[in-house]
Amino acid sequence: MKALVYVTLKKTVLDPQGATIARALNGMGHPEIASVRQGKYFEIELAEGTTKEQAAANLDKIAADVLSNPVIEEYKVEIAG
Amino acid sequence: MKALVYVTLKKTVLDPQGATIARALNGMGHPEIASVRQGKYFEIELAEGTTKEQAAANLDKIAADVLSNPVIEEYKVEIAG
Repeated sequence: MKALVYVTLKKTVLDPQGATIARALNGMGHPEIASVRQGKYFEIELAEGTTKEQAAANLDKIAADVLSNPVIEEYKVEIAG
Repeated sequence: MKALVYVTLKKTVLDPQGATIARALNGMGHPEIASVRQGKYFEIELAEGTTKEQAAANLDKIAADVLSNPVIEEYKVEIAG
């Protein structure tokens, strides 16, 4: 079973790295780019025999405790069949 | 309009960072984690008036030229309404 975890900065947190990318793209002839925010993305392979419910519960805990910083980041977990 | 770009290492490229996360999780009482691969994730806001076709074409170019390294990475672009 495979799970995807997306970690992004909270909307209220400034993202200077994303802002720099947006400015660079604007300067490279892409004026249509209004803003960019960068996040992290994890593809997690789970051992066979893990149930979907176990996976969802465990990954929620892992995303909150290890993969993201709850003070400034939020996360989304997707379990892919 | 909003677009999402996912950049991941190609399957054939080793991901030591992901391997370290997987090992750490195994040691923290999550033996069900078989492997982890880390990637980047960009949320891109496009200026109003950009058509879906323009956005798809431009973002494909941006993802290939700027956001990813085509030698070791692959990307996926999603245009979200």
